[in-house]
Amino acid sequence: MSNKYQVAVEELLTEADISINGRKPWDIQVHDSRFYTSVLRNGSLGLGESYMQGWWSSPAPDGCLYRLLKADLEERVKQNYKLLWLWFKSRIFNQQTKSKAVKAIGSHYDIGNDLYRKMLDPLMNYSCGYWKNAKNLSEAQLHKLDLICQKLKLKPGQRVLDIGCGWGGFAWFAAKNYKVEVVGVTISKAQKEAAEKRCKNLPVDIRFQDYRELQGKFDRICSIGMLEHVGHKNYENFMNIVKKCLNPKGLALLHFIGGNKTKFHTDAWINKYIFPQGLIPSIKQIGTSLEEKLILEDWHNFGLYYDKTLMAWYRNFKNSWPDLKENYSDTFYRMWEFYLCACAASFRSKKLNLWQLVLTHPEANSFYESVRPQEFISEETQVHLSTS
Amino acid sequence: MSNKYQVAVEELLTEADISINGRKPWDIQVHDSRFYTSVLRNGSLGLGESYMQGWWSSPAPDGCLYRLLKADLEERVKQNYKLLWLWFKSRIFNQQTKSKAVKAIGSHYDIGNDLYRKMLDPLMNYSCGYWKNAKNLSEAQLHKLDLICQKLKLKPGQRVLDIGCGWGGFAWFAAKNYKVEVVGVTISKAQKEAAEKRCKNLPVDIRFQDYRELQGKFDRICSIGMLEHVGHKNYENFMNIVKKCLNPKGLALLHFIGGNKTKFHTDAWINKYIFPQGLIPSIKQIGTSLEEKLILEDWHNFGLYYDKTLMAWYRNFKNSWPDLKENYSDTFYRMWEFYLCACAASFRSKKLNLWQLVLTHPEANSFYESVRPQEFISEETQVHLSTS
Repeated sequence: MSNKYQVAVEELLTEADISINGRKPWDIQVHDSRFYTSVLRNGSLGLGESYMQGWWSSPAPDGCLYRLLKADLEERVKQNYKLLWLWFKSRIFNQQTKSKAVKAIGSHYDIGNDLYRKMLDPLMNYSCGYWKNAKNLSEAQLHKLDLICQKLKLKPGQRVLDIGCGWGGFAWFAAKNYKVEVVGVTISKAQKEAAEKRCKNLPVDIRFQDYRELQGKFDRICSIGMLEHVGHKNYENFMNIVKKCLNPKGLALLHFIGGNKTKFHTDAWINKYIFPQGLIPSIKQIGTSLEEKLILEDWHNFGLYYDKTLMAWYRNFKNSWPDLKENYSDTFYRMWEFYLCACAASFRSKKLNLWQLVLTHPEANSFYESVRPQEFISEETQVHLSTS
Repeated sequence: MSNKYQVAVEELLTEADISINGRKPWDIQVHDSRFYTSVLRNGSLGLGESYMQGWWSSPAPDGCLYRLLKADLEERVKQNYKLLWLWFKSRIFNQQTKSKAVKAIGSHYDIGNDLYRKMLDPLMNYSCGYWKNAKNLSEAQLHKLDLICQKLKLKPGQRVLDIGCGWGGFAWFAAKNYKVEVVGVTISKAQKEAAEKRCKNLPVDIRFQDYRELQGKFDRICSIGMLEHVGHKNYENFMNIVKKCLNPKGLALLHFIGGNKTKFHTDAWINKYIFPQGLIPSIKQIGTSLEEKLILEDWHNFGLYYDKTLMAWYRNFKNSWPDLKENYSDTFYRMWEFYLCACAASFRSKKLNLWQLVLTHPEANSFYESVRPQEFISEETQVHLSTS
């Protein structure tokens, strides 16, 4: 390994206020010098893979990754001919040495419910919480669910569709607190079972069904943390299905992660290890997919709350590791840590946003009054949850 | 004129629940049969021009135009071969008879301040009011100004830029009630004079300046009803200028009319008689122009309030006609009536929206908490206004 690579990486990191083997919490400790070529050669993929290998660490990986993102290092590399030359050389002369040591660890949802149960809140919301007036993760998730119900102006007896219902947290909350009937669809059998168990004795129907097969009309539609998995070629089709299933006087709410720039592929490391085929939509892509289908009434960004949510998950994950470690490798631990910290850093640096959109049918004539509630239902859910 | 044209138009109108010479308030009275060919040949342009000619009228032109828009007649014409053939024939055989009787009446802002003074609220806001908790137009406009101030979270001493400041209503309101310093720019000398008069003794600087020549940094930026005049080729440049002039910790608010479909030209009649070179942007166009420049924090649609605003202007215009008629022709009256009613109908049928966006600088790290206020400053402004 040429020392040039090390010098180049050190220079880059200095621009992000990060030192190698320094004493700041966000500094990097390098344990194997292959780190330098890995990063120069493969960018964010190399950064993540070398973290999984244990070639580097940091007391605060989230703080380190936040500073890397804020400094826009990738842009700097592109604009720096010396660095570009080093990158080029490292690609040419190392083509056969591409790191193959770390193998993809299987798809995200094979990982097992025990991890999610330990990491998430009791209702197992695997999406951004709403931290306004919330003391902890559990309350932030209840406030998020109530925020959605208030924006949707739910009334007793309404039929509500939840596209991508996960472990049934929204269906349970809305049926219990707003006396609505909920149909939730998922393509995970494990999620269907858990959601059904959670919602027994409530007017909730959980279906194992692809969103493209949805039929019938609903007064309200929501989709929480699902559009990120739909893919840019399917956004228009997704909106068509929302329109088709929405009562013309109804309301729909979409909750998802949004990007500042239109892209057609996701980050290489995230794609390989965490969310294959995921994609973060942009305003332009969403706008294109809505045209002549649905009317935008309200668009709310609270991306910085995802930083708080991810850091709460990260704490839960670390604290539960003694229980989890029997079933997972140390490489898995570092992979999961890198995933949570890199995402937290992306929201903290505002590279990513959390968007909630309220949409109406073009035939509807009534005024939608958008709301930003000050008060939320946040009752204890432990009694119920102990049965699930 | 072939009777076929009359039958075709009558059939179309029936689909919109409109009868020729009927008794419903939104029915059409035809006074000259050239109306039929004019509409078939030139669509919305012919509809507007034949109204200006006095070839048709309606007791409630807004209700008539609303029903025409809701029925999507233009789409129906495109999908109906018989109608397409009639349209085609009328174009071929009448090429030399294109109506030239009605000449363009000069640009919108040559019309004279007296008309706007009679039609608008005392602060002369020529943009959508916010009718939440408002009893009348004047209060709706004050609530709109206060809504903007609350969304911008104005604090005493901040420097605020108003791009396209009109007759100075926002500058006056913000400086007086929020103790901020305002720089307003306009490219109308008449507006500059009126705004300066209104804002004397307040820390307000009104400049005769094109937005592309703006310099300096501001804590807050707003632009109210101006983006519609910028043109699709200039959206990115406009956003670049907002970014350049915005303190990285600052906030910007854009208030403008938005469309459900991406277009590169405006309605033919509106372009010819009311707003030459105007263009209503779409979500896609706005999303494209924001990329890598500004972060979207909040997007609020209250288009149905523009229906109420336009109908208030229409009532004021009609009530003031005895005073105004000496300076304007009857054709002008019908043109202005058609303009106000067609726009009201466009908002009522949700073909048009009113959007307020809150934007932050990508370097800002702080959380923007979006608001939907319940209370507004709506003090009487008559005392002050009597001096302007």
